[in-house]
Amino acid sequence: MIAVEHGSGSDIGRDRLLAFSDAIFAFAITLLALDVRLPDLPAGVTNAQLGDALAQLAPKIFAYAVTFAVVGLFWLSHWRRFQFIAHVDEPLLLVNLVLLGFVALLPFPTAVLGAHGDLPAATVLYVVNLSAVGLLGSASWFVASRRGLVRPDVSRSDELFGLLRGLPVPIVMLGSLALLRFGTSVVELSWLLIFPVQSLIRRFVRAREGPPPEG
Amino acid sequence: MIAVEHGSGSDIGRDRLLAFSDAIFAFAITLLALDVRLPDLPAGVTNAQLGDALAQLAPKIFAYAVTFAVVGLFWLSHWRRFQFIAHVDEPLLLVNLVLLGFVALLPFPTAVLGAHGDLPAATVLYVVNLSAVGLLGSASWFVASRRGLVRPDVSRSDELFGLLRGLPVPIVMLGSLALLRFGTSVVELSWLLIFPVQSLIRRFVRAREGPPPEG
Amino acid sequence: MIAVEHGSGSDIGRDRLLAFSDAIFAFAITLLALDVRLPDLPAGVTNAQLGDALAQLAPKIFAYAVTFAVVGLFWLSHWRRFQFIAHVDEPLLLVNLVLLGFVALLPFPTAVLGAHGDLPAATVLYVVNLSAVGLLGSASWFVASRRGLVRPDVSRSDELFGLLRGLPVPIVMLGSLALLRFGTSVVELSWLLIFPVQSLIRRFVRAREGPPPEG
Amino acid sequence: MIAVEHGSGSDIGRDRLLAFSDAIFAFAITLLALDVRLPDLPAGVTNAQLGDALAQLAPKIFAYAVTFAVVGLFWLSHWRRFQFIAHVDEPLLLVNLVLLGFVALLPFPTAVLGAHGDLPAATVLYVVNLSAVGLLGSASWFVASRRGLVRPDVSRSDELFGLLRGLPVPIVMLGSLALLRFGTSVVELSWLLIFPVQSLIRRFVRAREGPPPEG
Repeated sequence: MIAVEHGSGSDIGRDRLLAFSDAIFAFAITLLALDVRLPDLPAGVTNAQLGDALAQLAPKIFAYAVTFAVVGLFWLSHWRRFQFIAHVDEPLLLVNLVLLGFVALLPFPTAVLGAHGDLPAATVLYVVNLSAVGLLGSASWFVASRRGLVRPDVSRSDELFGLLRGLPVPIVMLGSLALLRFGTSVVELSWLLIFPVQSLIRRFVRAREGPPPEG
Repeated sequence: MIAVEHGSGSDIGRDRLLAFSDAIFAFAITLLALDVRLPDLPAGVTNAQLGDALAQLAPKIFAYAVTFAVVGLFWLSHWRRFQFIAHVDEPLLLVNLVLLGFVALLPFPTAVLGAHGDLPAATVLYVVNLSAVGLLGSASWFVASRRGLVRPDVSRSDELFGLLRGLPVPIVMLGSLALLRFGTSVVELSWLLIFPVQSLIRRFVRAREGPPPEG
Repeated sequence: MIAVEHGSGSDIGRDRLLAFSDAIFAFAITLLALDVRLPDLPAGVTNAQLGDALAQLAPKIFAYAVTFAVVGLFWLSHWRRFQFIAHVDEPLLLVNLVLLGFVALLPFPTAVLGAHGDLPAATVLYVVNLSAVGLLGSASWFVASRRGLVRPDVSRSDELFGLLRGLPVPIVMLGSLALLRFGTSVVELSWLLIFPVQSLIRRFVRAREGPPPEG
Repeated sequence: MIAVEHGSGSDIGRDRLLAFSDAIFAFAITLLALDVRLPDLPAGVTNAQLGDALAQLAPKIFAYAVTFAVVGLFWLSHWRRFQFIAHVDEPLLLVNLVLLGFVALLPFPTAVLGAHGDLPAATVLYVVNLSAVGLLGSASWFVASRRGLVRPDVSRSDELFGLLRGLPVPIVMLGSLALLRFGTSVVELSWLLIFPVQSLIRRFVRAREGPPPEG
């Protein structure tokens, strides 16, 4: 029987997972650039009219920039995680596939939020999609860690940190939905809590670990 | 004469086949995300109207999710197969190209099935495309196996299993067309037979192989 | 001064050229799949109407299949050529970029030919684009050969063959334009001469080389 | 604590940055090929009418060719820069991400310039986007150089040259905006100054370096 279940942790297998993931991240990060385009303007358009037409593209450019930042940061997380994952196997490939499925969707709720950020439905959609990516990031680290695919030089508290690291986004964003009755601006402002929560997690792991090594 | 015919089994050659395949799989898997987009809504749209507009996207999101799952599983098969193929040559590249041609088409019948799943023409189209990918997967393993491109540590029954592994999809799906006069739902339900057929094949190969190794 | 001019023949540099080329080939080969899509049909469409709508997609599917075959074969040539190119430098990167610029255009004349294959303008456009890709393929081998980037185990007659190998497409296709006054079908039929011309070139190189090695 | 901050300069990390960058460059370089397509023409169109329709695509083909050249040269700069960068870390990944964000936008101002090159707004938009890519190229070299990610065999004057190399495009283009009141043609003509400025920078670095090595 082909040794598919146990192992197949060859380098090529990992390289392909990464190449496939990078191609899908690249697709998601650039997708909204397709929307940044001028409509056909009449001949003899003036400079002021062109300026107006460009100004009307501002929400599209904004949605593109936000998608680029968000997908870029998720890509950076993915990159960072796989710096510490030495092997891959089929369960990890499957979790990663589901993660990629939500990554490739990201431009959609971002565009909806860009156009209708004041409406609860747009906010909820955005929160659900980003939280899914965050949770699946932690899930893929969990699978890698459980199945012994992580590099041997990664310590126990490193493994814990890798697991917790992806959680601030879903925790804060899903929690923020409790504030929906105060308006979508309050919800969106509360997302800034992601940063202090991240630093709390970092401190919590460090405290469990004992004093940080010198240097 | 350049040694194109015999060999060229260098690592770079194999890497390129895989990189090219991954880029095309990534294209096919994300294509229907392009369709998941809100139409321009009038200014001052209410939350309920936005919710309705999002709900109308459900079939597009469904088609996207199905394509993601199907292409993802075919990618996983491709990944698994090439874990055991050590070299590539031009005949294998050609079979792989034809396979990719059908993979990149997959979003099309999936979208048709999503919109018109109750009509026989949609079902037939879907069956034909998926079966083609399945058969070409087995064909590429057959070519690799015949031309000695498979890793030397792959046993005879492994090779047989690799060949049979891709067949449940085309066997069940093409066979299901015989049920078309009972309606498309019956046809689609019968696709669940793919799973028991897969496990039958696994048992058949294992039986030929003698008792499974311990551990 | 940074050693850009002489060398930089590191493996990473070559890998990037290939990865970038493969991504552009993948784009070109799949582009026309975007056109293979059903228009929105009215609710309650019958199976016969769906069949008609699918049948009307035949020219799009044909253009997709032809593009897939043509771009696929050009990719195969590119793959084969770079099996024998050990290093890359900036002149080779530039020639390769121009080649890729014509490759990414290929879907356009193919779609035009699919829709208006009976008109001389469509035929000329197609001939010019394919011939450009063929000539630039030979040019990139010429540059690699001249600048000593080819693997040392490639013999002189191999190098010559690599150079001539890309020429049958432009020679036959540009020559076929002389037949335009007999109608586009005659022109298109004459493209079948590509195959005998290829085998003539092969024989010519082999003749210069002396008797083929045994085995 | 996971060693994310210091180092992670593994080869895989660098390979992924390059693969991701190449996929986004490939997207940007081919995007405008999507616009090079014939509208549906009426049945029985004559050859002259098809010729007219093709001629009307000239501005689109021009915009595609310019984008291909510009993105291609930026890709070449990126390629060249990373020939001398041995390791990557997160700050470099971040600068590179911002660079890619502007690269993926490039087709947009190019298409606007192609359609409205005579209007100042189009010219300003184009200048700003290209200058941003140029400056971010220099910034990424600066980050790599400061953080010790550059290959050890790169000399001090090489490092300086790598830094200055990206500046002619933003210096000349941003400076050219001072000429806007003389008309956009004057501005666009002045961009030819990029070439002498590049050669000046080359001389300046060489002068600081002392006599060039023999051979």
